[in-house]
Amino acid sequence: MSPQATEFDLIARYFKRPVPKEMLGGGDDCALFNVQPGKQVATSMDLLLEGRHFFSDVDPRTLGHKALAVNLSDLAAMGASPVGCLLGLGLPSIDTAWIDQFAQGFYALAQQHDCPLIGGDTTRSLQGIVLSVTVFGTVDSARAMRRSAAQIGDEIWVSGHLGTADIACRMLAGVIPTDPERLKKIRHALEMPVPRLALGQALSRHVNSAIDVSDGLLQDLGHILQASGCGALIEESALPVHADLLGLPLPLLRQATLAGGDLYELCFTAPVSAHAAIQKISHALNIPLTRIGLTTRQSGLHVVDQAGQLLPDLPAGFDHFRI
Amino acid sequence: MSPQATEFDLIARYFKRPVPKEMLGGGDDCALFNVQPGKQVATSMDLLLEGRHFFSDVDPRTLGHKALAVNLSDLAAMGASPVGCLLGLGLPSIDTAWIDQFAQGFYALAQQHDCPLIGGDTTRSLQGIVLSVTVFGTVDSARAMRRSAAQIGDEIWVSGHLGTADIACRMLAGVIPTDPERLKKIRHALEMPVPRLALGQALSRHVNSAIDVSDGLLQDLGHILQASGCGALIEESALPVHADLLGLPLPLLRQATLAGGDLYELCFTAPVSAHAAIQKISHALNIPLTRIGLTTRQSGLHVVDQAGQLLPDLPAGFDHFRI
Repeated sequence: MSPQATEFDLIARYFKRPVPKEMLGGGDDCALFNVQPGKQVATSMDLLLEGRHFFSDVDPRTLGHKALAVNLSDLAAMGASPVGCLLGLGLPSIDTAWIDQFAQGFYALAQQHDCPLIGGDTTRSLQGIVLSVTVFGTVDSARAMRRSAAQIGDEIWVSGHLGTADIACRMLAGVIPTDPERLKKIRHALEMPVPRLALGQALSRHVNSAIDVSDGLLQDLGHILQASGCGALIEESALPVHADLLGLPLPLLRQATLAGGDLYELCFTAPVSAHAAIQKISHALNIPLTRIGLTTRQSGLHVVDQAGQLLPDLPAGFDHFRI
Repeated sequence: MSPQATEFDLIARYFKRPVPKEMLGGGDDCALFNVQPGKQVATSMDLLLEGRHFFSDVDPRTLGHKALAVNLSDLAAMGASPVGCLLGLGLPSIDTAWIDQFAQGFYALAQQHDCPLIGGDTTRSLQGIVLSVTVFGTVDSARAMRRSAAQIGDEIWVSGHLGTADIACRMLAGVIPTDPERLKKIRHALEMPVPRLALGQALSRHVNSAIDVSDGLLQDLGHILQASGCGALIEESALPVHADLLGLPLPLLRQATLAGGDLYELCFTAPVSAHAAIQKISHALNIPLTRIGLTTRQSGLHVVDQAGQLLPDLPAGFDHFRI
């Protein structure tokens, strides 16, 4: 074994904390976990590459958090409960302080959501940092919130507030002028997104379809509409713009709220009869849930502004790392 | 959405063949699959990076095969049956002929082993080609072949023949002189490894522990010994050297058989009482299974040569891509 191999074996030890005793964790050919009778396994994978999905000088602790958070968000959007995860980590060089911080960010979120790291792969990358995270959860088959299950006449809802991650990312990328005071308040939304797991599980009894807003509200809602074969009418005045964005020019706000990605709030559709139950969930979990429109028999996605006029041009999703 | 995004969405379509109807495949937040009562989920992930795990000019069809094969081999070493897989694919540019060939190699093996591709992620890489594969299988908890379950006095076995992948890789890397005739015969072992799934499942009723020989026989057997707290004595004369390697110098053969990786045969330990059952499995599956030694109370891994002398120095694992 070469010296590098030995070093990388050492690195792997940062990711070998104990796992629950009914599981088999890293250190064998496979990890093993149990699934309760009547449950399905929900699984999702994201590949995150340096320069493409995160800045090279990113704080490793927030990167560890985010790499897991974006995957947990997929479980949330399905209404699933986390079971465990796998981490693939390719690094160009060994920086133990960096690894330690990354592992701390990853494990803190994993512990918070009972999602133990049960396996993966650590290797040297000849290029930049490469991250691959796979999450597993379980969900009652009948309650999984599929994108294809929206019904015509459903109310469309979104959790939390819109726009902060997008504006923060654009400021950090130098695409719009940086406002240090504002950036200080909003960059947390970009770097430490909160996966809406408890919300997803609570909603799954009441809603028809859901998705997480990773690529922008219009684009992600569009996936639901396409899979479900219906259209939608969104009221711009109903959109829950984050208070920290007040005072920004309207075109910028419109872009950030309608098309800004990297947010990981849930967008979902539910029958009108579920309105009160959804409001109760909002109160119980202390998470704002806002009705922003309706699904329609007429195809296409339309937005009316405060004056009741259809917006003629809808902003496209903007991905800061897609050059 | 930028032009690249659209192109990459097109690429993703190469990986969206139908999945069995009891599953939910790609195109939602998560893939969903069922697990039979009484079964555990076995899962494994490998990260494969250009220049580190494969040559830049690798045939994309064999790369697609191998990316899945090395993961299926982990299921085999656990005695698990495949359920499905996820593919993360990062590419520096769009070459549809390349993608098509890669997909064909991947899907051919997936179909052969009933392991449908149910999700994943496709993205542009600013560096080289990045592959991440996660496989899922199921296994009876009591039958999973764990590394930690070898018993003192177990017979040690290996499937197939040793050394070919290592010699082929060294020839291709220019580490040893290329012998075109020989290379033609043996490069298949390196590029199109066969995951021993049926063998793993058949063995799981009879053996105590197993591992796949990805990093070299001594190193991988060493993992079993370390996890199980015992030692081993291997008889060099018993090693099943591949016939296509005859005539090579002894030091090279010794290195290739004892320490050569990238092979994906199974190494396993079983009680002497299972000897006849294991030979029956060998005949039934038409896969050579060779007894190569015994586990010992005395710790450490020892090899005796044909003259009955302990080898004073054991070759270390050699990884061609670890520079």
